[in-house]
Amino acid sequence: MSIMHAVLPQAAEAVDAVRERSPLVHCITNAVVTNVTANLLLAAGAAPAMVDIPVEAGAFARVASGLLVNLGTPHAEQREAALEASEAAAAAGTPWVLDPVAVGALPVRTELATTLVERRPTIVRGNASEILAVAAAGAGGRGVDATDDVDAAIASAQELATRTGGCVAISGRVDAIVDASRVVRVANGTALLTRMTGAGCGLGALMAASASQQRDPLVAAVAATLLLTVAAERAAAASTGPGSFQVALLDAIDAVDGAAIADAAVLR
Amino acid sequence: MSIMHAVLPQAAEAVDAVRERSPLVHCITNAVVTNVTANLLLAAGAAPAMVDIPVEAGAFARVASGLLVNLGTPHAEQREAALEASEAAAAAGTPWVLDPVAVGALPVRTELATTLVERRPTIVRGNASEILAVAAAGAGGRGVDATDDVDAAIASAQELATRTGGCVAISGRVDAIVDASRVVRVANGTALLTRMTGAGCGLGALMAASASQQRDPLVAAVAATLLLTVAAERAAAASTGPGSFQVALLDAIDAVDGAAIADAAVLR
Amino acid sequence: MSIMHAVLPQAAEAVDAVRERSPLVHCITNAVVTNVTANLLLAAGAAPAMVDIPVEAGAFARVASGLLVNLGTPHAEQREAALEASEAAAAAGTPWVLDPVAVGALPVRTELATTLVERRPTIVRGNASEILAVAAAGAGGRGVDATDDVDAAIASAQELATRTGGCVAISGRVDAIVDASRVVRVANGTALLTRMTGAGCGLGALMAASASQQRDPLVAAVAATLLLTVAAERAAAASTGPGSFQVALLDAIDAVDGAAIADAAVLR
Repeated sequence: MSIMHAVLPQAAEAVDAVRERSPLVHCITNAVVTNVTANLLLAAGAAPAMVDIPVEAGAFARVASGLLVNLGTPHAEQREAALEASEAAAAAGTPWVLDPVAVGALPVRTELATTLVERRPTIVRGNASEILAVAAAGAGGRGVDATDDVDAAIASAQELATRTGGCVAISGRVDAIVDASRVVRVANGTALLTRMTGAGCGLGALMAASASQQRDPLVAAVAATLLLTVAAERAAAASTGPGSFQVALLDAIDAVDGAAIADAAVLR
Repeated sequence: MSIMHAVLPQAAEAVDAVRERSPLVHCITNAVVTNVTANLLLAAGAAPAMVDIPVEAGAFARVASGLLVNLGTPHAEQREAALEASEAAAAAGTPWVLDPVAVGALPVRTELATTLVERRPTIVRGNASEILAVAAAGAGGRGVDATDDVDAAIASAQELATRTGGCVAISGRVDAIVDASRVVRVANGTALLTRMTGAGCGLGALMAASASQQRDPLVAAVAATLLLTVAAERAAAASTGPGSFQVALLDAIDAVDGAAIADAAVLR
Repeated sequence: MSIMHAVLPQAAEAVDAVRERSPLVHCITNAVVTNVTANLLLAAGAAPAMVDIPVEAGAFARVASGLLVNLGTPHAEQREAALEASEAAAAAGTPWVLDPVAVGALPVRTELATTLVERRPTIVRGNASEILAVAAAGAGGRGVDATDDVDAAIASAQELATRTGGCVAISGRVDAIVDASRVVRVANGTALLTRMTGAGCGLGALMAASASQQRDPLVAAVAATLLLTVAAERAAAASTGPGSFQVALLDAIDAVDGAAIADAAVLR
């Protein structure tokens, strides 16, 4: 309980800080979700910028407030951009998030993720299968679906967090967010988040935004997870299916503040 | 009439089977419609995965339940991925759909389509101009608009279907779905489907999903066409323009089942 | 006042002409906004086609009615396609729009923009920072946000317009649209346009559509700006946040005509 009491008010503050300061969030992300990712960041108050070509990506990561590297559709130029940007972020002390989409299941991105993890991402976010694969403790899932259980991945996630010195967030029905010594579970959300594309990928981007305002990676990851899942609960109540849910989700993220999130949070 | 009586219940079953079994649909598709394609598949109950880089595309096509190759924005890596994936699908017996966007009008994709057709796609889906171009019986259209009439393309489509051993679907005001010996026309739909981007491309993806559950390509193509067009009629009734229509379309696809589709179907 | 009196009815006519004639608008644009750009063009009555690979881009620019070159995510193939297409457009007399996203702030696109400006785009559209950078009178902004003031960029914009022989449109709270001798300010719009991704990029595409129907580039740019901003005012009144705003915006663009736009226009 003491962890929760400390984490929640700080997470609420991080959500408000993003909205007040509009941090520039550098995204290298997949072709399927670029648009919704930019819109989720804008709804949260951040300023998205998708800069994913060589030469520019390294330069931009040095001036951005946070960086997301998502491996969903890692074309050759994006892979080079990801290496440049993560190196620049590590050198500049810019917080950055690695989202290892389908790592373990597909070879090109799996090799790239191995290199990226060595650069110690502030936060690694994925489903249980992806986290297990990144931690080299599993053989990966079948893409964006988790075939492994969140709780079954916690030990590996903590081992990975020990290596990176940061935080690892495992998305599932109940999300688990861990660092080397702490485990926080977020039980908010709705099944509709799995019926739209980009909710998980967008969560990675929201984590990059909150990590730019909150130096404790675990708190930053909890903040972004609560922002998405609490807003999603409101959106679910206002929608009639996966189409109207996505629209309502952007409206709800725009509308909630730290206090509302702290109020609705279900941490374990 | 006898064909319709046989086709309709099987098509309704295929729609329900996709929702029950959530097949993994591998999409290599264009940059404009990746997001809406993924969301249409999710609304239909399928599990989309956009894997469109060399090395990974071939590996993934071997484990996917169905494959879509859409030539809308065929960058070099995607072209290589399309060749890999279609070869793997053909070898593994995975049903696959070719959507020859703007083939005939533009040179790079036209050459690629010629090679892909030799690998005998389970379903070829396009507008009349594209189908005529693929069948080498026309000079192509001006992109995504059909400048040729659906009925004028039926003879060429049947010739093409004879070569592939599969089915050819011609989209238009009334869709025509043919194989070597049969012709089914679907008269459902709304003009709003032409006022959003991605309805046709998304239909190709829905066909890949239904073809994974129904071995008769013509029935699979009819199932996907009915799912999209019957849901579109409901969405049109609930919307006030092309923006709200797209939202309502995802909700409607999520809501309809095989029985509702069979009930509303207008086959000829 | 005399300029406004001349410009407004012609701008209204251009909006109606796009809807009546459905011009084919060739877009080479960034990965974040391809979908919303296509949907904005469809809502306006135009026919979008995203053709952004070498060989095809040059061929297509020769048959299109208008061309947009947007530098938001300029991958290597897109850069080559942009060079091909702008050359073909210039040779064929096809009106074309250059949107120099983040030029000045990022090196690869800045070099490309310098070459493209020499081909005399019909319209250059950007925020104040981007326009200053293109005019070589500033050091660029931080991406899609303007850090410079619209009015501070007018002198440079007019100098740039003198060089291109066309028009330069500076987006901001009040947009300024200039050519070598004229300045028109459009004061319509809503802050919600800055809370979605793609409004500015989509505006460039709408300008390519209107420039295909109206030979005076300044009038064409005013027409597209009014279409977007007047529709945005209606959409803002009908929405509850940035998600519902985007949906309402497409509905509103579909619904307004030249007369409604002329009626609501606030020109200065």
